Amino acid sequence: MSSMTGITPKLIGLCASAQEILNRCARQITAEIEQGVEKHYKEVLNVSSGDFHGMGLKPITITRQVLAACFYPSLLNDESLPLDARERAQSILRETEAGSIGSYTAARGIKKIQASVCKFITKRDGVVPDPDNIYITNGSQTGLIIVLKLLVQRETGVLTPVPSNSTFNMAVVALGGLVVPYYLHEEQGWAVQLEELRRALHTARGRCNPTVLYIINPGSPTGHVQSKDSIEEVIRFAAEERLFLMVDEVHQDNVYGKGIEFYSYRRVLAEMGPPYSSTVELACFNSISKSVMGESGLRGGYLELVNLDPLVLPYVYNYFNLTVCASVGGQIAVDLMVDPPQPTQPSYDLYTQEVQSIRRAIRNNAQKTLEVLSGLPGISCQPVNGGIFAFPRLHLSQSVIKHAKEKQLEPDLLYSLRLLEEEGLCVGAGCVHGQKEGTHHIRICLATPENTMKDVLQRLESFQLRFIKEFP
Amino acid sequence: MSSMTGITPKLIGLCASAQEILNRCARQITAEIEQGVEKHYKEVLNVSSGDFHGMGLKPITITRQVLAACFYPSLLNDESLPLDARERAQSILRETEAGSIGSYTAARGIKKIQASVCKFITKRDGVVPDPDNIYITNGSQTGLIIVLKLLVQRETGVLTPVPSNSTFNMAVVALGGLVVPYYLHEEQGWAVQLEELRRALHTARGRCNPTVLYIINPGSPTGHVQSKDSIEEVIRFAAEERLFLMVDEVHQDNVYGKGIEFYSYRRVLAEMGPPYSSTVELACFNSISKSVMGESGLRGGYLELVNLDPLVLPYVYNYFNLTVCASVGGQIAVDLMVDPPQPTQPSYDLYTQEVQSIRRAIRNNAQKTLEVLSGLPGISCQPVNGGIFAFPRLHLSQSVIKHAKEKQLEPDLLYSLRLLEEEGLCVGAGCVHGQKEGTHHIRICLATPENTMKDVLQRLESFQLRFIKEFP
Repeated sequence: MSSMTGITPKLIGLCASAQEILNRCARQITAEIEQGVEKHYKEVLNVSSGDFHGMGLKPITITRQVLAACFYPSLLNDESLPLDARERAQSILRETEAGSIGSYTAARGIKKIQASVCKFITKRDGVVPDPDNIYITNGSQTGLIIVLKLLVQRETGVLTPVPSNSTFNMAVVALGGLVVPYYLHEEQGWAVQLEELRRALHTARGRCNPTVLYIINPGSPTGHVQSKDSIEEVIRFAAEERLFLMVDEVHQDNVYGKGIEFYSYRRVLAEMGPPYSSTVELACFNSISKSVMGESGLRGGYLELVNLDPLVLPYVYNYFNLTVCASVGGQIAVDLMVDPPQPTQPSYDLYTQEVQSIRRAIRNNAQKTLEVLSGLPGISCQPVNGGIFAFPRLHLSQSVIKHAKEKQLEPDLLYSLRLLEEEGLCVGAGCVHGQKEGTHHIRICLATPENTMKDVLQRLESFQLRFIKEFP
Repeated sequence: MSSMTGITPKLIGLCASAQEILNRCARQITAEIEQGVEKHYKEVLNVSSGDFHGMGLKPITITRQVLAACFYPSLLNDESLPLDARERAQSILRETEAGSIGSYTAARGIKKIQASVCKFITKRDGVVPDPDNIYITNGSQTGLIIVLKLLVQRETGVLTPVPSNSTFNMAVVALGGLVVPYYLHEEQGWAVQLEELRRALHTARGRCNPTVLYIINPGSPTGHVQSKDSIEEVIRFAAEERLFLMVDEVHQDNVYGKGIEFYSYRRVLAEMGPPYSSTVELACFNSISKSVMGESGLRGGYLELVNLDPLVLPYVYNYFNLTVCASVGGQIAVDLMVDPPQPTQPSYDLYTQEVQSIRRAIRNNAQKTLEVLSGLPGISCQPVNGGIFAFPRLHLSQSVIKHAKEKQLEPDLLYSLRLLEEEGLCVGAGCVHGQKEGTHHIRICLATPENTMKDVLQRLESFQLRFIKEFP
């Protein structure tokens, strides 16, 4: 019995990813530094993932105060915590069984928090959702996988942007579905193009049964923010082609491009009116990890289902029950994300100050990154209007490509590994996210303190100048 | 586009369960009471699920103190919290990226907590596990589903006890596998019988490919605790038949039968020596929800993989990565479950007192339940040696069965609904958990304050006496 009895063959395709290679290398360098090995940098800066707190941004105080008081209700009487934090905690505890967040909640989440999400959507979009269509989840990733499980069967094609979110693609494949790539148009700031969606769909037909269209808006890792017109176009396309829309809007909290506004698919769909508003099937996702609160470790998010057949909903609900409820800590943070302190409340000033400072850091980091990159040879970057990533393109010479081939590495992974070894800077490699053949990119997280980003850009700059000399 | 575009047919089988019918009815009665409708009981007592806090048991203080200080580190200097709670919080924060539990942790959990789990297993079993084989999960349910995903493909048969955990069975079916039932022997205190395992396996061969054996020990909902000999027998059987053992040991913290001891499969396997100890593939599950801390809402647990092919482990790890890390709140509670306060620490006395009081309540509730049931006509119950449920058998008359058939209800669901309506007592219906054809049961959760259980048993008694008069 030396080999595993039942390992499913579908897993064999999931080999160690480029990101894992980078992470391993970063851990090794960190260990070396700890053991006293001399480097010309003091520590590894890791901007390859989207981890606000890991990079040194601070949590929002009231979120943590409410969590502390919910977990340890003796704090409800502790006057060192602001009154609104204690009242919020009290109001959440009242909604739990026997007043303990140690109880199971309903599988779809605490009712009051579902209601808070509804109010948030109403305020944002001018529509009144049915609370029964809101599901509080352990983060958007879990939400996406739950919906994929509902939609994907053998031969289901899922139209997926390139570049995209690699775990989403892995989930589609693990469920027996097919990833149908559609390419975002880099030269147009990574816009979604209707003709490309059509091309992808028509190429897929015959090979599989494409029924799902996955959209990420604001774009990740691209920084593109879709216009209202573009969203309308996509919705019309989904309606004509009978596609189920899965819309990942986890970056909605960070939109900062000049004159750029975030429109939710929910809102645009409602404003289009019938027949679209009452027929196009839509699942929208949001998360506490990518909001300014940046609470990735808590695991919290929600999804909303729109226009699903009422006959189908009981099955969705039962399926959801399989996963038990989302962790209560994450649920509480969702409540604060969608229902933050109001101007009359004692926490409002501190909250506003904290949020503004994080938003400012991300916006300034985006601007600074574009400035520095625009002055560097061999690299270019589209405008970043939202989200927390820049995805600059590397214009690599033939000599790099050849060298990478010899080393059996993707060229941008080779670049990222060299950057990591020589400057202690860990960026993401474009090959993880997908890219047009023959193009190469890196991903840089912008959700860091401004000083850190200054250091990041200096390291990148000195590496790039050396690298293009080495491989002219 | 009025019907959902891609709903997977495999979902159609998951219809509203008996438990959901009971829950709905309980909610309705509660709403009626709130609206002032007169009942001869003041409130619904719900002992149908295993929710410690929901039933009124209290959380363990230090768990909540550590959580509060981790979430809101200003509390690290608050001397109203005991020093060991603050030190524990500090030591956990040191293990997170940039000292914030808002950062992502490694996908398999915080390293320090994996190490704490290893020490716990070493102390319990005298073996030294590889920390890389420990995965911290959002509760045991999530852990079970992750392992099922690895093992189950089309036609995989999973040997599953009857009675059992219905969500496990649903997960097997949702993954395209087949549930192969093996019946626990009620008259022998719900023991696992080797000949029954053999019968189940041989009947299944030909119909499917049975490669997984699921064990729940201590038994749930049965209260049976397997002897060391019985475990050895099962392990030998798994070795002979090349079965992967999935062992759900979430009730290990509550074993109270006279002279009864909990043996983990991990320990027995190690003590059996080679070839068993080095070849039998095993996944073991534990959870904070069913430990005395009863923290169901936090979602936390761990699984250990034993003897998996080292070539397969990287795929397991990659697959695990798909789910992001478990919620940090749950991870922290796992740390406290496996590494509780020690005698020299300030929290030790309170901790010990709280744990003893919960254990005493469960043990006394089990005893009291058996006493009351043994005096009641038409109902019988096997000894309950561990876990938090009793699963008494209803000896229903032909007139009840006929009446249930007319109402198109399972007889024990009919019984439970009547009990709920007439006495405001919500118990679980045996049909949810599975049972030998022609037998009928109810499930009662014992993890309640002792006063509550007194009330539960009084309501059950008066109902049962009326019911057998009505249906002689």
